[in-house]
Amino acid sequence: MKPNLEAQMEAVGESRYDEFVEATVRFHGYPAPGVLLGCYMVTAAQRQLPQGILYDAVCETAWCLPDAVQMLTPCTAGNGWLRILPLGRFALSLYDKYSGEGIRVFLDAGKVNQWPDVADWHLKRKPKPQQNPQRIRDQIRAAGERMFTMAPIKIRSDFLVKRSKGPIRICPLCQEAYPQRHGEICRCCQGDSPYEG
Amino acid sequence: MKPNLEAQMEAVGESRYDEFVEATVRFHGYPAPGVLLGCYMVTAAQRQLPQGILYDAVCETAWCLPDAVQMLTPCTAGNGWLRILPLGRFALSLYDKYSGEGIRVFLDAGKVNQWPDVADWHLKRKPKPQQNPQRIRDQIRAAGERMFTMAPIKIRSDFLVKRSKGPIRICPLCQEAYPQRHGEICRCCQGDSPYEG
Repeated sequence: MKPNLEAQMEAVGESRYDEFVEATVRFHGYPAPGVLLGCYMVTAAQRQLPQGILYDAVCETAWCLPDAVQMLTPCTAGNGWLRILPLGRFALSLYDKYSGEGIRVFLDAGKVNQWPDVADWHLKRKPKPQQNPQRIRDQIRAAGERMFTMAPIKIRSDFLVKRSKGPIRICPLCQEAYPQRHGEICRCCQGDSPYEG
Repeated sequence: MKPNLEAQMEAVGESRYDEFVEATVRFHGYPAPGVLLGCYMVTAAQRQLPQGILYDAVCETAWCLPDAVQMLTPCTAGNGWLRILPLGRFALSLYDKYSGEGIRVFLDAGKVNQWPDVADWHLKRKPKPQQNPQRIRDQIRAAGERMFTMAPIKIRSDFLVKRSKGPIRICPLCQEAYPQRHGEICRCCQGDSPYEG
């Protein structure tokens, strides 16, 4: 999907909105405003990066933005090139995976008020049943990139280290493999299991 | 991508391996053993679920498995139907999003020794340069689902609650929107920023 979409987007130029909607429905399940906004954010950041570099991504929230990154870049949750941080800000960064230098894009609360339905959605000023999803999408389409602000960033050097599990051992309780650094037994057996019983 | 792949897999029956490789390269970037294994795990779990239910997913590790889930199910990191837990076990579960009942699949350390290159990879018994990726993949293809074990699970009830950000406010320092429950200022301004400076 990714290569096709990117090729199409170059071909269609300005009319990327429809491509974003189609890709969002396919990957995310429905045309969520947050993913559509994320598509504009990702492509805006990509244009600012030097050509041909290898880049990693950070999303400052787990809501919606990780899907835009995964749809439009090589970075995924499972390959380690995308980090999802529970920071609660609607922002993402793409950065050179070696130097840490890159671009941060965020939905600018000072600009978004020009598109009132998007602002109400972003700030949760209206309960969901009172929001009008089509109007939110129409405003996203009309605004394009104008509700975002970009700034250069440098990622902290501890983020540039490749993630590693370290040595692996078998948990004496559940008999499954786990990273030795978690302790004498695996985290599930330590009480972090998501399952009942 | 998702609907096409699933349709193809039903059509091709036994020879899903090639489809898994193709989808893995497209989404994950390269045919990582962990994602290929994850594809078998996901499709094995799907067959055990009652037809037509809405299901959510848990991955017990951020390594590889989230991508298999995102490629083959409607659950993604950004739509909240996939949770990625840092538990360090190579396991995933699909479960009814209302009842919490479902199926867990894990790479069984007691079985995987029959496929020595996969076992060496799984337990990191050999440094990466001494591993033979093609042989690992050949053994995955040959083994199919035989190195996994499945068991019914019930997810903890606190996982069944829909995630919510709660009320949103503007951070008085960075002027960006964030969840009020994070405190008087946003987490980035509290010191959790991933950026230098």
